[in-house]
Amino acid sequence: MLKAINNGERYQLTSPTAMPQSASFLWNKKMMIQVNCRGYAVAQFMQPEPAKYAYAPNLEAKTFMQPEQPYYAHHPGRFFYIKDEETGEIFSAPYEPVRSQLNNFSFNAGKSDISWHIAALGIEVELCLSLPVDDVVELWELKIKNGGAQPRKLSIYPYFPVGYMSWMNQSGDYSQTAGGIIASCVTPYQKVADYFKNKDFKDKTFFLHETAPAAWEVNQKNFEGEGGLHNPNAIQQETLGCGNALYETPTAVLQYRRELAAQEQQTFRFIFGPAFDESEAIALRNKYLSAEGFAKAKSEYQTYITSGKGCLQINTPDPELNNFVNHWLPRQVFYHGDVNRLTTDPQTRNYIQDNMGMSYIKPNITRQAFLHALSQQEESGAMPDGILLLEGAELKYINQIPHTDHCVWLPVCMQAYLDETNDYALLDEIVPYASGEKRETVEQHMHHAMRWLLQARDERGLSFIAQGDWCDPMNMVGYKGKGVSGWLSVATAYALNLWADVCEQRQQNSCANEFRQGAKDINAAVNKHIWDGEWFGRGITDDGVLFGTSKDKEGRIFLNPQSWAILGGAADEQKIPCLLDAVEQQLETPYGVMMLAPAFTAMRDDVGRVTQKFPGSAENGSVYNHAAVFYIFSLLSIGESERAYKLLRQMLPGPDEADLLQRGQLPVFIPNYYRGAYYQHPRTAGRSSQLFNTGTVSWVYRCLIEGVFGLKGSPQGLVVQPQLPVAWQTAEAVREFRGATFNVSYRKSSDIKEMEIQLNESVISGNTISDITAGATYQLTVLLPATH
Amino acid sequence: MLKAINNGERYQLTSPTAMPQSASFLWNKKMMIQVNCRGYAVAQFMQPEPAKYAYAPNLEAKTFMQPEQPYYAHHPGRFFYIKDEETGEIFSAPYEPVRSQLNNFSFNAGKSDISWHIAALGIEVELCLSLPVDDVVELWELKIKNGGAQPRKLSIYPYFPVGYMSWMNQSGDYSQTAGGIIASCVTPYQKVADYFKNKDFKDKTFFLHETAPAAWEVNQKNFEGEGGLHNPNAIQQETLGCGNALYETPTAVLQYRRELAAQEQQTFRFIFGPAFDESEAIALRNKYLSAEGFAKAKSEYQTYITSGKGCLQINTPDPELNNFVNHWLPRQVFYHGDVNRLTTDPQTRNYIQDNMGMSYIKPNITRQAFLHALSQQEESGAMPDGILLLEGAELKYINQIPHTDHCVWLPVCMQAYLDETNDYALLDEIVPYASGEKRETVEQHMHHAMRWLLQARDERGLSFIAQGDWCDPMNMVGYKGKGVSGWLSVATAYALNLWADVCEQRQQNSCANEFRQGAKDINAAVNKHIWDGEWFGRGITDDGVLFGTSKDKEGRIFLNPQSWAILGGAADEQKIPCLLDAVEQQLETPYGVMMLAPAFTAMRDDVGRVTQKFPGSAENGSVYNHAAVFYIFSLLSIGESERAYKLLRQMLPGPDEADLLQRGQLPVFIPNYYRGAYYQHPRTAGRSSQLFNTGTVSWVYRCLIEGVFGLKGSPQGLVVQPQLPVAWQTAEAVREFRGATFNVSYRKSSDIKEMEIQLNESVISGNTISDITAGATYQLTVLLPATH
Repeated sequence: MLKAINNGERYQLTSPTAMPQSASFLWNKKMMIQVNCRGYAVAQFMQPEPAKYAYAPNLEAKTFMQPEQPYYAHHPGRFFYIKDEETGEIFSAPYEPVRSQLNNFSFNAGKSDISWHIAALGIEVELCLSLPVDDVVELWELKIKNGGAQPRKLSIYPYFPVGYMSWMNQSGDYSQTAGGIIASCVTPYQKVADYFKNKDFKDKTFFLHETAPAAWEVNQKNFEGEGGLHNPNAIQQETLGCGNALYETPTAVLQYRRELAAQEQQTFRFIFGPAFDESEAIALRNKYLSAEGFAKAKSEYQTYITSGKGCLQINTPDPELNNFVNHWLPRQVFYHGDVNRLTTDPQTRNYIQDNMGMSYIKPNITRQAFLHALSQQEESGAMPDGILLLEGAELKYINQIPHTDHCVWLPVCMQAYLDETNDYALLDEIVPYASGEKRETVEQHMHHAMRWLLQARDERGLSFIAQGDWCDPMNMVGYKGKGVSGWLSVATAYALNLWADVCEQRQQNSCANEFRQGAKDINAAVNKHIWDGEWFGRGITDDGVLFGTSKDKEGRIFLNPQSWAILGGAADEQKIPCLLDAVEQQLETPYGVMMLAPAFTAMRDDVGRVTQKFPGSAENGSVYNHAAVFYIFSLLSIGESERAYKLLRQMLPGPDEADLLQRGQLPVFIPNYYRGAYYQHPRTAGRSSQLFNTGTVSWVYRCLIEGVFGLKGSPQGLVVQPQLPVAWQTAEAVREFRGATFNVSYRKSSDIKEMEIQLNESVISGNTISDITAGATYQLTVLLPATH
Repeated sequence: MLKAINNGERYQLTSPTAMPQSASFLWNKKMMIQVNCRGYAVAQFMQPEPAKYAYAPNLEAKTFMQPEQPYYAHHPGRFFYIKDEETGEIFSAPYEPVRSQLNNFSFNAGKSDISWHIAALGIEVELCLSLPVDDVVELWELKIKNGGAQPRKLSIYPYFPVGYMSWMNQSGDYSQTAGGIIASCVTPYQKVADYFKNKDFKDKTFFLHETAPAAWEVNQKNFEGEGGLHNPNAIQQETLGCGNALYETPTAVLQYRRELAAQEQQTFRFIFGPAFDESEAIALRNKYLSAEGFAKAKSEYQTYITSGKGCLQINTPDPELNNFVNHWLPRQVFYHGDVNRLTTDPQTRNYIQDNMGMSYIKPNITRQAFLHALSQQEESGAMPDGILLLEGAELKYINQIPHTDHCVWLPVCMQAYLDETNDYALLDEIVPYASGEKRETVEQHMHHAMRWLLQARDERGLSFIAQGDWCDPMNMVGYKGKGVSGWLSVATAYALNLWADVCEQRQQNSCANEFRQGAKDINAAVNKHIWDGEWFGRGITDDGVLFGTSKDKEGRIFLNPQSWAILGGAADEQKIPCLLDAVEQQLETPYGVMMLAPAFTAMRDDVGRVTQKFPGSAENGSVYNHAAVFYIFSLLSIGESERAYKLLRQMLPGPDEADLLQRGQLPVFIPNYYRGAYYQHPRTAGRSSQLFNTGTVSWVYRCLIEGVFGLKGSPQGLVVQPQLPVAWQTAEAVREFRGATFNVSYRKSSDIKEMEIQLNESVISGNTISDITAGATYQLTVLLPATH
């Protein structure tokens, strides 16, 4: 049902119904498109806020991408009806809207394209979607082949629904000049100021062809008639009616009437996207709409994707892991770091973490991101809830709600950047504050951030939560200004310790002591007020109720406080084994480790919106991968390699089919969650959100590079400290590091008791490779005791 | 295809496809539902802002009701599948989603219910929807009859899709306790303050049955499977799977398996609606879900509708007009006046006009509305853009945009109230201003409103337009603060003159003179700056460009300035014939008189959002009935009876079938527009918006009562001055007036040259009936010269 091709560079799904939600995505600097195996699509582009050019059939709310995207008959998609003109039989590629029984089906998720190969009624259809690097346009190639021995008369109808563009004004017609269909709308507005924002919008949606069609239809109702999408009236007729849309829902349907000789194949190309006016659409047509244009765009796009290939190639006994780490994980990390989820105001914690991932791909981007983020810091040290990427951008949605955790992420992520690059000079860069008046070094900015965290605590020494920390939903704990966060307290200790390390490295000893002492104080407060006997609680409400404890029937244990207590030092050697046991018993599932359990069955007034990100009916408690990866990161920090690897591996669906079907997602990205409530709702547990925006991936990459494969940077060079799973006897890795290439071979041996490292065939003492020459290639053999 | 039943108390449409959009609506104090002939529905209820309990399949934007509501396969609706268990054949009632060929179909729009009668596969189905007066619940009755001579085995499946309730949390299951399906969600929010607003929301959707079903399905995807809505997998199976929804789109499907003897009929009852919790749903069940409960609710609802029956019953040679005026027009007027379009912040001009209509139904409501509106007036005299009806309500959407016309509507509408009731005591009521500090008489409030209008003018003496007047879309003319409105100027003159009349009536002569002089000044300025030679222009932009003139290729002539120039006195006896000719030549169409012509084909930067309410592709220029009725009103004011009647009559679709089909609407309400752009787009011209919210109807009623039937109130009594169309030789009317009943008989006679009035068989002198006794019945015979 699912096959990895060419070492996992492409995944092929051979059923449109087994995993109906399964999707892949493409993006460029200006747009992204998620397409599912059945032909439904969600696409958006930046102008400068996210906008659409293929719309729902009603007036859809502008919002973030929906988890487990609900698809329905008229959901936007890209479809091709094929009619046998002699028998009148029809089917549609890739599967929707006709949903015929197909003789063959494959959905092929590639790194730089998405394609299908289907067969029905003796006709073979190949579809391929690709994007250029710089323009907002979909490039569609359709190949139709008569697979039989007799000539066939076919009508071929690309059907690209445009949807309900606007209540204010919408229309559409075929344009001979443009060579295709152009639908127009006026973006609705009410305030005069919005008129000026909107007037340059790309309010036209074009669907242009390379080859002129026999007929077309631009009116959705004309197209469907009483037949419905599965059997449109217009397709039952000999030719489409060439109708237009006048304040009616427009669509884009073309008809090609072709006679195909036995085994003959014909190729069609189309472009689909938004434009300001017809001439912009024509310019895109001239640039792309030809065999050469498509080929050039594809080649440029491959170069773009390759530029994000990352710093680690592996070869282990786990082929799915190899595929994922060699292709998909760095691609997903690159996506986050290169386009910041296609928002103009990424949440501060996301922006910093997404850019942390770029440390392993394009570290200069990470550097710029730190400078940019810190230039929006307040002089108090506080970080804003979102980082504005463009002039005129505004904090929207959840970024208007005060959260208290943003400063934590600065040292937590900067550590990765410094380790990877040794670019301590970053700390001496001078950066303004949001006010624009004061300017200080990055180091000073960081000091202020840490001091802001230190002061944002109550009389017990615990960190205020305000209307939320990470993750967002616990918005009622501290809205009165008193409630505190157990997680944020231990995370603050972690951040302070990390920053104290940097201060020490820079011989800033008094600062180091200040922050180290702060961490100690917080950890002491946490142990006094938040420890529940077997694990740490999640927080204390405005009214003084400690929650996330053994007294709670729902939400007894939360994962984040445990992970970060390990990282930040609140959990001592006695407490760590307790925590690990509690997590194992209460939170682990075959699909990963849940964020909390037992799942809530109702809102809890004093805790708040715990249900937002944890679907499963009124219940919740998902395997929230971003939380899960921090638990893994904390396990690696204490050498719990085996537990860590097991949980890491659970982030990927498969390889067994039952697991794949339950999750319903191709292993081409890590979703932000798998459904939890494992004990309450086994039917849905494990199901993927299908959302590829997640802070998880840069941490997974870091866990693999620094933890599992143990190839971590330090001021002294590359520190080798692998934590391979027991089951692996050998493994290979190629690690790009500070311009050099390390070909690493791991071997388990029962002959040795301690790790032995050979550099270019010579055993070295210690586990740090120093004096690395950029451009050089090193052979590294890591011999490990077999018990490891 | 369309039949009026019982003197037009009910309209019956016999095809589901001929006029697929055609709909009827029901409402009560807390909800409204618009249902189209095919089974699609738009319902909303107040909590306190408009909310839904049956949702779209995606996250729909919260907005006003959409014109020409786009329907699509998964649009919310109420459906019943019927399966012959022996043959496996299915159909659905009323028509969607299966869209079978039916043997019989009727959609019956009643004043207090909506019903269907359909037949297919030898089965007869009767469906009836009604509402109670006070609760948010739909009462559905289904009757299934075996119309044949053999027993039949049927499965009967009510299918009430619930839709995508919430991204935050949604679920559903069957409840034995409640006796039906209960779907739950959490209304999404991000701000803490919204949590407290939302926590008492009715976030559950129930679908409860009277009779226990054999099986059910709560999971939309389970129900459809790969079959799709037209042939759901679950219905292909013997029994529904009794699935639940866990963060999945819920639905409500029940299955009854019944054997029906020849000619046997079985009855089922269901209730559908929102509830805070299961016990609230159960309480509604106990109250309504029985034959007695339905009957009682229906009877109470009929009483409610009857309480809004209005003050005019007619019998003329035009049966469609009779039907409409006797049943549907007062119902629509009553709807507006009784529930204020189910908003919490009606636009001020709408609130005042909708309540003007109540002068003819429940005048005390009108009185209260004036007092309420004026209590929100600013001390400057300015009226706000919307009237807040509830504590905590806010001005939303277009009510946040400054418009300058609201004061005009006060005297324009108050005249109707005073004429109808003679309640000049209203003017002595003491009312606070919005500040809450100052309190003055209504008369003083009105003076201030008039003075506000007088000062809101430029150096030429023309009225500023700011970001809009009536109608809203011209938002760019004066946003810089300089542009002026030709319409608002002549409307201000009209308002001033009317108020001067009242002042004179009250012997407030200096005020009367002040306002009369103001009107004169304005009219002089209009004639100097706005007159274009054959008609009045629409306004002058910020940059000094007069538009709506013969120089303009698009938007050459606007209707409103002409109508109101007649009413307000700007148009003198030389100009009036010019105007009438210009309107006739450029704006009249078979579907009514257009608001402007030629339709715009693009936005005009200096004029603005002219396209909003004037659909027809990028073009516009609809028959906007609210504007059209003022033209009619102005025609009646100058005795242009024949033109007036023709245009009034054009507001109703039919009676001829081509006209009905083109408009696509039942004559059970006047829509806010019919499509214009008559010359550019004949295909769509005349098409109804299907929106029943419109300020038109109270004016249509006024035009009929005071104008056509000439039974207008005055301080002296009832003034008789009919303007019957030439084609009528006789007509009858029953007019309720100040508690008395007038049975009026109109007769044309070639024997007389002037109108002759007989009161209780005695000829009276003059045309005013004075000394009217409440409770009395008067016989009035009005003899009219035949030439009239």
